[in-house]
Amino acid sequence: MRWPEGFIAVDWGTTNRRAYRIDGDGRCGDEFEDDRGVLSVPTGDFGGAVAEIRARLGDRPLLLAGMVGSNRGWIEAPYVPCPAGVDEIAGALVWADEQAAIVPGVCDPRRADVMRGEEVQLLGAIADGSVSPGSLVCHPGTHNKWVEVADGRIATFRTIMTGELFNLLREHSILSDLLAEPAGPGDAFDAGVRDGLAHDVQAQLFSIRSRILLDQARREDAPSYTSGLLIGGDVRIGLEPAAAATQIVIMGRPELTRLYASAIAIAGREPVELDGERCFLAGIRQIAERIQ
Amino acid sequence: MRWPEGFIAVDWGTTNRRAYRIDGDGRCGDEFEDDRGVLSVPTGDFGGAVAEIRARLGDRPLLLAGMVGSNRGWIEAPYVPCPAGVDEIAGALVWADEQAAIVPGVCDPRRADVMRGEEVQLLGAIADGSVSPGSLVCHPGTHNKWVEVADGRIATFRTIMTGELFNLLREHSILSDLLAEPAGPGDAFDAGVRDGLAHDVQAQLFSIRSRILLDQARREDAPSYTSGLLIGGDVRIGLEPAAAATQIVIMGRPELTRLYASAIAIAGREPVELDGERCFLAGIRQIAERIQ
Repeated sequence: MRWPEGFIAVDWGTTNRRAYRIDGDGRCGDEFEDDRGVLSVPTGDFGGAVAEIRARLGDRPLLLAGMVGSNRGWIEAPYVPCPAGVDEIAGALVWADEQAAIVPGVCDPRRADVMRGEEVQLLGAIADGSVSPGSLVCHPGTHNKWVEVADGRIATFRTIMTGELFNLLREHSILSDLLAEPAGPGDAFDAGVRDGLAHDVQAQLFSIRSRILLDQARREDAPSYTSGLLIGGDVRIGLEPAAAATQIVIMGRPELTRLYASAIAIAGREPVELDGERCFLAGIRQIAERIQ
Repeated sequence: MRWPEGFIAVDWGTTNRRAYRIDGDGRCGDEFEDDRGVLSVPTGDFGGAVAEIRARLGDRPLLLAGMVGSNRGWIEAPYVPCPAGVDEIAGALVWADEQAAIVPGVCDPRRADVMRGEEVQLLGAIADGSVSPGSLVCHPGTHNKWVEVADGRIATFRTIMTGELFNLLREHSILSDLLAEPAGPGDAFDAGVRDGLAHDVQAQLFSIRSRILLDQARREDAPSYTSGLLIGGDVRIGLEPAAAATQIVIMGRPELTRLYASAIAIAGREPVELDGERCFLAGIRQIAERIQ
């Protein structure tokens, strides 16, 4: 362990970042979140963006995960291929300077898929025993990941861009005026899940509007129904390898894991929900401990 | 036939309109297209938008089809339920004034689906014998329609918003930078079609980007591959009732019917392509002849 006095861990995504001061005893002493995601940082100015973090949390070494290691980030950290565990990932850190290491993402060349950021949460949950061997892990977000875990490592995974599809439909499509209100759990969401589990989502989208035009659905149900439809389709695809899975785990932000949990329950499985932030902190400590 | 001296036919959509002067002998004597779609006309000002048409094509009665009959149009013309033929549709014209009739759309209450505008093309092709009984008709566009024809009428149909999905991905998604160039036929399109015929499109979209990141696909192939993927998924869904169909017909703009024709051929059927404009003119004449 190179950093006995502690360090700063950052989960640095495309549009947001969350930074944590990890003290020498492993506890999180302070934290903040802001909208200084990778896309908001001018090219070549990651030094300035990093200085802001140290100004708030102290002058400590940095361990950075997420899109900060992409080709739009500070320095590109090449993907580690599956199967990838904490040793492979900690062994492939890329040092932006002597006091700042970047966690690489993981790729699955067989499935032509990539992740950046989710791997830290996964490794944390594997390390603390929340994800048993043979688990299928769902990590909802803009780009939902379905991850098969074997031998304590990320064995294979696939990405379904469900959150992004929902945002596209809500903000820019012919359905926009129907989707302005927030989506949430309930009967309309469950009805959407059932349709998404049974049918191809591409075939169902137009009916969101036409059912309202024909008085077969209520306008106010459209946001939750649509959310359920997309998540139902996502879960149908994601659960394909579920028969062989010992356990279904959902990891991420609680408001999202709750929606996915109810969709997976409708599909007939009993998932376990994990808080993504807690998993991130567990995972980033695992990586930090391996820095020599 | 109330209009022996001829009339003006307008295919008036959401973003464009196309107007034709139909002379007493049934021929199209003059025409124009512009971007004065329904959404560009201020509420309550359809009189002005109609006067522009007469200023260009002559002071004749008008027969208007498409979104001009929707709740965003001039006067709402309620949907005629399936099964709907030319008699049902001509019998449900709505008169905006004494010299302007609006063609109603068609709805399929069983499937909760609606169309406005495509019905005129369909009726024209049925009337001139291009669409035989028992045909399955594909009408690609922003919102592709798959229509089953029986007894000379529109029996049932479904809408798949493939064109809109492609536009959303191209203009607003994480794939935008990959999709800026035009899509077209060829090997990349065909590869996309095969993937769309075999897999759920929702499951495949993210791989468009990740395959390029992992050097498994060429960046310049992304637009045509994506177009093929979405059209392949559309064709997989649309051809579900194809086993019982005597013939597969594709009707619409030639650059789109060509793409759908090659996708349907990859799916193992031999489609017939029809020019949508010619079908529209045949259909609108059929309706006009029934005006007493």
